[in-house]
Amino acid sequence: MKCRRCRAPAVIDVRRHNAGFCAECFTRHCREQVRRAIEDHDMIHEGDRVLVAVSGGKDSLGLWQLLRELGYEADGLYVGLGIGSYSDRSGEFARAFAEQHAWPLLEIDLEETYGFDIPGGARAAKRVPCSACGLSKRHVFNDAAISNGYDILATGHNLDDEAAVLLGNVLRWDAGYLGRQHPVLPAAPGFVRKVKPLVRLGERELAAYCVLTGIDYIVEECPMAVGNRHLGYKDMLNQVEERSPGTKAAFLFGFIERGHERFAGDAAEEREDLRPCSECGAPTPGEVCAFCKLRSRAAAPRIPVRVEDVHAEVEA
Amino acid sequence: MKCRRCRAPAVIDVRRHNAGFCAECFTRHCREQVRRAIEDHDMIHEGDRVLVAVSGGKDSLGLWQLLRELGYEADGLYVGLGIGSYSDRSGEFARAFAEQHAWPLLEIDLEETYGFDIPGGARAAKRVPCSACGLSKRHVFNDAAISNGYDILATGHNLDDEAAVLLGNVLRWDAGYLGRQHPVLPAAPGFVRKVKPLVRLGERELAAYCVLTGIDYIVEECPMAVGNRHLGYKDMLNQVEERSPGTKAAFLFGFIERGHERFAGDAAEEREDLRPCSECGAPTPGEVCAFCKLRSRAAAPRIPVRVEDVHAEVEA
Repeated sequence: MKCRRCRAPAVIDVRRHNAGFCAECFTRHCREQVRRAIEDHDMIHEGDRVLVAVSGGKDSLGLWQLLRELGYEADGLYVGLGIGSYSDRSGEFARAFAEQHAWPLLEIDLEETYGFDIPGGARAAKRVPCSACGLSKRHVFNDAAISNGYDILATGHNLDDEAAVLLGNVLRWDAGYLGRQHPVLPAAPGFVRKVKPLVRLGERELAAYCVLTGIDYIVEECPMAVGNRHLGYKDMLNQVEERSPGTKAAFLFGFIERGHERFAGDAAEEREDLRPCSECGAPTPGEVCAFCKLRSRAAAPRIPVRVEDVHAEVEA
Repeated sequence: MKCRRCRAPAVIDVRRHNAGFCAECFTRHCREQVRRAIEDHDMIHEGDRVLVAVSGGKDSLGLWQLLRELGYEADGLYVGLGIGSYSDRSGEFARAFAEQHAWPLLEIDLEETYGFDIPGGARAAKRVPCSACGLSKRHVFNDAAISNGYDILATGHNLDDEAAVLLGNVLRWDAGYLGRQHPVLPAAPGFVRKVKPLVRLGERELAAYCVLTGIDYIVEECPMAVGNRHLGYKDMLNQVEERSPGTKAAFLFGFIERGHERFAGDAAEEREDLRPCSECGAPTPGEVCAFCKLRSRAAAPRIPVRVEDVHAEVEA
């Protein structure tokens, strides 16, 4: 197989584009896809300060580098989630990458700043870990971007991620979620603008981009995500993609073009009902936001003090 | 496990309802689901003449019996598709069932009436067989119902079928198809009303209903459908249903409640552009309808006569 652009021997083929690429043209292809996503969805305006959420994985480190290559002076944000040695190692990859390029990396440790970690938070709030984690990251990312004066939070959600999330939303026909699922979520009171510049690139392309450009990333997946629903949806879509290359992209971009707008009103209605959380000020439909609820459960002493024990101590 | 209604030993459990049923209560449950589908979607009005498309399989024979049990004097329609011995056997099952109950069965043979069969039609039109078959059945069913004075055509599409079709339509975000996907398609000029009273029952429930009530049906699947896309979608949904019982029903009914209406306008627009086919009079967006195009290709001599051969014959 030859490179579609320069006819040199190809090092990767992208089945849904029915094209092979040599290393140089492939990295160019990746940049081009990110440039196009940014342009098509009007993601970043001149002078915007961009913060990239990085986990140490291929998607987020790849995104950071791609944005820099495209001329955006994006900074990184690493949030320590306290998921045992997995978090330790992912932080090391993120830090090493930032140091290597001398790009600024903001760091926030969930336990230090908010008094709980993901395993403990999930247990205390009786949520599945991925739910507690997603909720916490959304809150902390948004908060970090706003309080540090960034205009944009960029995340490394790729085509496979977005298609799997869309499948989950569609299986439930959750109109509010469908209305919020878009490569750009505009800024709103209490919300920084959120963009997903990798929507035009698949997981495999991100891995290849990192390998070909020498990005050292954490290969292992989060141990708490094993067997979760999202990965099940990814598997389903991989099966149909295997059979009909291009299905995932048609599904996601078909939705963006012909589906999303039909649900935008539901999301807008939900947004209108938001008011500041009485504890942290973040927008929430209730009195206290879900993150503060999680935190108050998780950061509270986990074993309630028993009256007998106090008596025993006093008597001793 | 005990029957949910009468506490007798259960013979079947329906995981998405988290319930077991004895034989009697299960057949009652099936009738109840059909009655509710008819009522919820206002499918059949008093005095309507109902024609049920029967294939000899569990869904259509089950539907026919369920409609009769509910008091509808539905007649049957069997279309011979010419798919080798499979069609021969399916016709035998349909005829035997009709005779056993002395219920009227209309019969139409595709080859006799229209001059082609499905394998030949698919080959000639270079369509996948399931596409040629679906197109032909839609046309012939509608035509048979209208020309025989029926108000309603009922088909045996069950929950699994409809969920799989919905998944295919959603993966492509085909707005027109999504707008037409509904348990009831109202009558329109040239179109009889079409209803799907089995949408609240799964494949497994239909098989159990037939076994428990002694309906003898063709168990084998159509040999031309093996490995088709639709069955792939069914497999995908079965995987997620296995893990989260109720997903299929939530997907289909969520769409009916919160999705369908958003696409109804696209279907209505397409309907407005229809005009009578210049050959058969059926509504079509073009000059000649897809069925007449298929027929003219398929019923024409398949090996074009070569001029040389004619010369040779004349000279001989």
